[in-house]
Amino acid sequence: MNTENLAHVAPAGRGPLEKFFAVIPAGGVGTRLWPLSRAAAPKFLHDLTGSGSTLIRATYDRLEPISGNRILLVTGEAHRDAVCRQLPELADDDLVLESEPKDSGAAIGLAAAILFTRDPETIMGSFAADQVISPDEKFQEAVREAIYTAATGKIVTIGIKPTHPSTGFGYIKMGAALEIEGAPHACDVAEFVEKPSEEVAEKYLESGAYSWNAGMFVAPVELMLRHLKANEPLLYDGLMEIALAWDTPERVAVKKRVWPTLPKIAIDYAVAEPAAAAGDVAMIPADFSWDDVGDFAAIARLSSAKEVKDVKVIGESPRVFTEDSTGIVVTDTKRVIALIGIQDVVVVDTPDALLVTTRAHAQLVKKAVDGLKLNGDLDVL
Amino acid sequence: MNTENLAHVAPAGRGPLEKFFAVIPAGGVGTRLWPLSRAAAPKFLHDLTGSGSTLIRATYDRLEPISGNRILLVTGEAHRDAVCRQLPELADDDLVLESEPKDSGAAIGLAAAILFTRDPETIMGSFAADQVISPDEKFQEAVREAIYTAATGKIVTIGIKPTHPSTGFGYIKMGAALEIEGAPHACDVAEFVEKPSEEVAEKYLESGAYSWNAGMFVAPVELMLRHLKANEPLLYDGLMEIALAWDTPERVAVKKRVWPTLPKIAIDYAVAEPAAAAGDVAMIPADFSWDDVGDFAAIARLSSAKEVKDVKVIGESPRVFTEDSTGIVVTDTKRVIALIGIQDVVVVDTPDALLVTTRAHAQLVKKAVDGLKLNGDLDVL
Repeated sequence: MNTENLAHVAPAGRGPLEKFFAVIPAGGVGTRLWPLSRAAAPKFLHDLTGSGSTLIRATYDRLEPISGNRILLVTGEAHRDAVCRQLPELADDDLVLESEPKDSGAAIGLAAAILFTRDPETIMGSFAADQVISPDEKFQEAVREAIYTAATGKIVTIGIKPTHPSTGFGYIKMGAALEIEGAPHACDVAEFVEKPSEEVAEKYLESGAYSWNAGMFVAPVELMLRHLKANEPLLYDGLMEIALAWDTPERVAVKKRVWPTLPKIAIDYAVAEPAAAAGDVAMIPADFSWDDVGDFAAIARLSSAKEVKDVKVIGESPRVFTEDSTGIVVTDTKRVIALIGIQDVVVVDTPDALLVTTRAHAQLVKKAVDGLKLNGDLDVL
Repeated sequence: MNTENLAHVAPAGRGPLEKFFAVIPAGGVGTRLWPLSRAAAPKFLHDLTGSGSTLIRATYDRLEPISGNRILLVTGEAHRDAVCRQLPELADDDLVLESEPKDSGAAIGLAAAILFTRDPETIMGSFAADQVISPDEKFQEAVREAIYTAATGKIVTIGIKPTHPSTGFGYIKMGAALEIEGAPHACDVAEFVEKPSEEVAEKYLESGAYSWNAGMFVAPVELMLRHLKANEPLLYDGLMEIALAWDTPERVAVKKRVWPTLPKIAIDYAVAEPAAAAGDVAMIPADFSWDDVGDFAAIARLSSAKEVKDVKVIGESPRVFTEDSTGIVVTDTKRVIALIGIQDVVVVDTPDALLVTTRAHAQLVKKAVDGLKLNGDLDVL
C-alpha cells in the first residue's frame, strides 16, 4: 500500500504548530516499582512524586498547552477504565487500546497511521506517560522547537542535558547546528550510543556534547510511515489496515483480527535507527529536569512528599512513626508503619504485598517480581 | 487477720511433691514485641518460637508433669477467652482474673492467699507465662529440688546458669550448700544483685558463682503470706479478704470491691527481699536454657522456624521472598513479603501495623509504642 494514495488535501496556510498532534504511549508495568506498580495498576496510574497528579495526568497537562485536545493515547485494554477516570476529556476515537502488548513499534506506528489517515500533514510527538519533567515551560519550548524542526522533514529527538553520569540511559552526541526558524537550538545528531559504562558516562558528562536519549521524538507522520514501510513492511501493512478502519464501524473487528498478527519490534529499530542512518534525524538539546522514575531510589529523590523526621513518606493518609531512621515509605494502606533504627530503607506497603529493601538495592526489585512469578504468586504481580 | 486461724487440718503423710500447686502469672503486654504483642494479644498468647505452642500453653505443659492439674492462672479479665481457648482444662476456680493490673505483689499474693485458704500446707511455685525453657526435663528436676527445699521452710528461687554476660537480668550469688534430701543442689543465697554493667556481668560470668534471676520461685504459701503480712499489711488484708470469698458465691462481689483498693508493689519488694534479709531464701542452680523473649532479636535467636535463604520466617502461612537478605520476618497476615538486599532486618507484619527495624535496635521497639501513644494511635497498641 502506498501512503500517497491516502493523502487528503491539507487545509492551506497552517503553520507547523497547528499540524501537531501529541501521542502518549502508556505501557510498561514498571517492574522495579513493584508492589506499588503492577500489571493491574502500572506506574503511570500513580502519583509517585506527591505532586497531586498521576504521571499520566501530568503528562497530558504538560502537552495540552501545545496540542490542545489533539492528544492520542495508546494503552492496554485492561487500563481503559483507569485511564478514562484520569483523562475524562479524552475522545473515544483518540484512545487506542491494545488487546495484547506488541512493543513500541506497533503502538507508536498505529498512532502514526491513524493520524496519517485523518490528516497526512500531521506532525506527531511521542511522549511516554510515566516520566517526571520540570519545569513544564522548558519542556514545551523544546517541543515547539522540535515541531518547527520536524516540519523541515526530520524525525526530531529531544535530548536531555545530563545531571550525572547515568549508566541507565542511552546517549545522543550532538552534531552541527541546523539554523531552523523557530528552532534556534536544533542540531544534527552525530551519533546514538547505547547505555555506557560508568567511566564512559563520566567522559560524556564532562565533554558537554552528549545528551540523554529520553525516547521523546517529534516527526511528520508521513516520514515515520515511510521509514516503517521500508524497514518493516508487514508491520506497516497491518497498521495501515487497522488505521483505515479506525474511524469506521469496522474498527473493533479489524483490530481484533489484525493486531495479534503484528510483529513485535521496538520503534528504535523499526524507525529511529534506519532514519538516523539516512540522515533524517535531528535533535533539540534541552535542559529541563527529566526522570523516568525507574526505581524507588528515584521516587525518594524526586518526591516532594512530606518527611517524617528523615524519612520521606508517600501515601494518601500515612500513619508513619520513625525513630533514628532514614529512607522512604510508600503506602497505600491505612496501617501504622513504625521504623526504628534502620537506614536508607525502602518500605512499600500495599494491601496484599510488602517490599522492604534499601535505596542502593532499588534496581534489584525486579528480581522479586521474577522470583514471585516462579513461585506462582501471580495474584500480587 | 492471723493466718493460723485459717489453717485446716492437712491430710497426713503427704510428701512435699503432693503439696505442690503451680501458679502462672500471665501479665505484661510485651511492649518490645509490638506490633505482634499488644494489649489485646500479649506475648504469652503467641507462639514466638515456631514450636507449635503458644508460650502460655508451653508453660502449662511444662508444669503439668509435676503438678498435674493443680495449676492456678492469674491474668487480666480481657484475656479470659483467649486463655480459656489455650487452656481448656483450666478449672474456673483456678482462673484468677484481674479487673485492673496491680503489679506482681497483688497477683502472686492473691494466688498464695487462695491456695492457703484451701490448704495451708500448700507449696506454691510461680512461673511466668511468657518464657522459653528447654529442655523441660531439666526444668522439672530443678523445680522438684526447689519443692523439697521449700518444704524445709524456705522461699526457693531457681537460678539460671548464664550463657553470656547479660546486662538485662538481675543476678543471684550462690552461698553455701544446704544438704537437703531430694535437693542435692540446694544452696544458700549470698546476695541478690540488680542488672549489672557489661564489665561486671563479664566478671559474674567468669566467676561461675552467679546465676540469672529468672523470677521463678517455690515456697510454702504460709511463709509467703507471713512475709507479706509483715511488710505490706494492707495488701495482705485485702488479698485475704478476697481469698476467703474466693470459693464462695461472694467471689465476684468481694473482688470487685477490694481489688481496686490494693496497693501496687512488685513481689520482689513485698516478699522476696525482706525474706532474703531474714535468711529465708534459698536457691537451686539450674542449667536449662532460659529466655524471657524480651525482643525480636531473642525471637530470631530462639525460633526453630524455617529459614527462607538466610531469613527466619515465623507465621502460619507465610509468603516470603528474599534475595541477598538476612534477619527475621514475623507475620500474621497472608501478604506477600519481599526482602531485597537488606541485612539483619526485623519485619513484623500484622493486619493493622507494620514494624521495620534491625536486630541491633530490637530493644528500642518500645519507643515506637511510646511514640504511637503520644500520637494517639491507640487502636494499634
